[in-house]
Amino acid sequence: MGGDYAPDEIVAGVVRAVRQHGIAVVLAGRPGQLRPLLADHHAAGEIRIVAADDSPGMDEGGLAIWRRPRSSIAVPCQLVRRGQASAVVSAGSTGAIVTTARMRLRLLPGVLRPALAVVLPSRPAPAILLDVGAIADPKPEMLVQFAQLGVAYAQVSHNVAEPRVGLLTIGAEPGKGNKLARRAYELLSEDPKDGGMPIGFIGNIEGSDLLTGKVDVAVTDGFSGNVALKTLEGAERFAVDQLRQIATASPAARLGALLQRRKLREFAELVDSETHGGAVLLGLSGTVVIAHGASRARGVTSACLLAADLEERKITERIRERLGPERHFLRRPLGHPRDAD
Amino acid sequence: MGGDYAPDEIVAGVVRAVRQHGIAVVLAGRPGQLRPLLADHHAAGEIRIVAADDSPGMDEGGLAIWRRPRSSIAVPCQLVRRGQASAVVSAGSTGAIVTTARMRLRLLPGVLRPALAVVLPSRPAPAILLDVGAIADPKPEMLVQFAQLGVAYAQVSHNVAEPRVGLLTIGAEPGKGNKLARRAYELLSEDPKDGGMPIGFIGNIEGSDLLTGKVDVAVTDGFSGNVALKTLEGAERFAVDQLRQIATASPAARLGALLQRRKLREFAELVDSETHGGAVLLGLSGTVVIAHGASRARGVTSACLLAADLEERKITERIRERLGPERHFLRRPLGHPRDAD
Repeated sequence: MGGDYAPDEIVAGVVRAVRQHGIAVVLAGRPGQLRPLLADHHAAGEIRIVAADDSPGMDEGGLAIWRRPRSSIAVPCQLVRRGQASAVVSAGSTGAIVTTARMRLRLLPGVLRPALAVVLPSRPAPAILLDVGAIADPKPEMLVQFAQLGVAYAQVSHNVAEPRVGLLTIGAEPGKGNKLARRAYELLSEDPKDGGMPIGFIGNIEGSDLLTGKVDVAVTDGFSGNVALKTLEGAERFAVDQLRQIATASPAARLGALLQRRKLREFAELVDSETHGGAVLLGLSGTVVIAHGASRARGVTSACLLAADLEERKITERIRERLGPERHFLRRPLGHPRDAD
Repeated sequence: MGGDYAPDEIVAGVVRAVRQHGIAVVLAGRPGQLRPLLADHHAAGEIRIVAADDSPGMDEGGLAIWRRPRSSIAVPCQLVRRGQASAVVSAGSTGAIVTTARMRLRLLPGVLRPALAVVLPSRPAPAILLDVGAIADPKPEMLVQFAQLGVAYAQVSHNVAEPRVGLLTIGAEPGKGNKLARRAYELLSEDPKDGGMPIGFIGNIEGSDLLTGKVDVAVTDGFSGNVALKTLEGAERFAVDQLRQIATASPAARLGALLQRRKLREFAELVDSETHGGAVLLGLSGTVVIAHGASRARGVTSACLLAADLEERKITERIRERLGPERHFLRRPLGHPRDAD
């Protein structure tokens, strides 16, 4: 029920994900609204509906969200928690999804906070940027964990054996940045503690390095990460708009554009967020994919594909392995064999 | 002496600024290096040289910079301080210039910290983004002052009578963002204290709004501002590179590009940092323009033009007016007439 074009485009996208890609999808929402839409696609018996209320709005705070265990975001999270689903996909408000997922899903052992990750269309290979907004004021230790989450994502999704990790900051030299980045740099440079696997940290990177393929994973706080992501989206939209104006400026230019048609469409696709599926909330006991709020059917299908792909490749287990179970056990009130060493 | 192509391209750019635009420029640097370069341009008697050492490097800290009062950045600052020059232009390391200028120039009354401002090529009108890196961990009160500095810049440079000011953050609603942004939002929403002039604050904006003309001035901390600026530069370079590839992909595409030649050049110009002159350090008793480190002659000429233009339009006086003199007087140990009120 979340997203600018819900539920029509959500249903259309889900039908496509089920029929064209064989993904098993359960719809959570108001059956009275969803049933006729499924019937329009002749998919009434094909796709299961679980009754849920509307999606929480952007302006709803934590308490309001807590009081809505039947929202169309909370219900799928409960399905995942009970093992009846593997992943959640939503095009609702990012803030509401992050809050709901944190309340309804378990944190993976050792994870302090989940992080929101996106894939950037950098060349020659894609890069993962995180956190892009799950937590605006993180502690430096959390950035080290974000690096682990990003590495697992790059390994699983982009088949990179040893992802190169950069810290997004200002100035390339060590010691540059704000207090948070300077401390995170120190922690990332050390060997991981708490039983985590080593991180291939290559040092500081700047905003201008995000699309150059310099790193496979760019780590930052949720505030700067969100500013960088939105700025990137704005710049890409700006470039596409300017090109459209160039292409229609004169008859000669129109002819020129016609000759480049296929390539220009490829560029627009490359920078189009609907192609990429959406942001992924990592660090919880189940993958949550957040599609762009303005997603049409195509974007919803991409998001379902991304969620299914991450689950098939066992992203959650990979994160568990990378972080190591020690922290979790040490935190238990009762003694664990290791404690006796 | 600062910049990747110093001193050759600096001298070439300055000669152009003097001859084509009638700007009076004094060169600070090693006379033995500068004199032959001026002679190559037949400008030996035309442009004055003030002896100075090399520019400080990116890796030099505050203490090292303090110990170099004869650097090619320190000397021009001293000329401004003594009233023998109006503005400083450099293509040296941004960090070194900001540190030197803060040591050698006075803060304007009431200014807590100077801010680094850039003009973004947004459409339909340009927008000013600040701070883009002068201070990585500012206090919320400083962001209100940055708004005043940005308003003065927009009024003077873009002839906007009442600039619209936005706070760059994550999420458009009030209360969104990190701690710093949430507090800055409150302060910007109040009437200015300390005798400052009212700010036309329109609320939060996101990175995607930077190029849409939604605001004339975007205010943020130096960390996020620098990340946004560098990300924008990277995205623009990415778009231009992709277009170049599109334009040479096939004979038809090459013909297409030929037909759009003029317009594509205009787009490249629009997003080229050399066209814009550079970043301006505002809040000190003299304008400091920081050209891109990789500036060629054209970029240096643009930077000189920007500095001269800001001085002619009396940016420093405008900032003084906007901030109001009260804070300065209240801070004096001896009583001021207003104190008796």
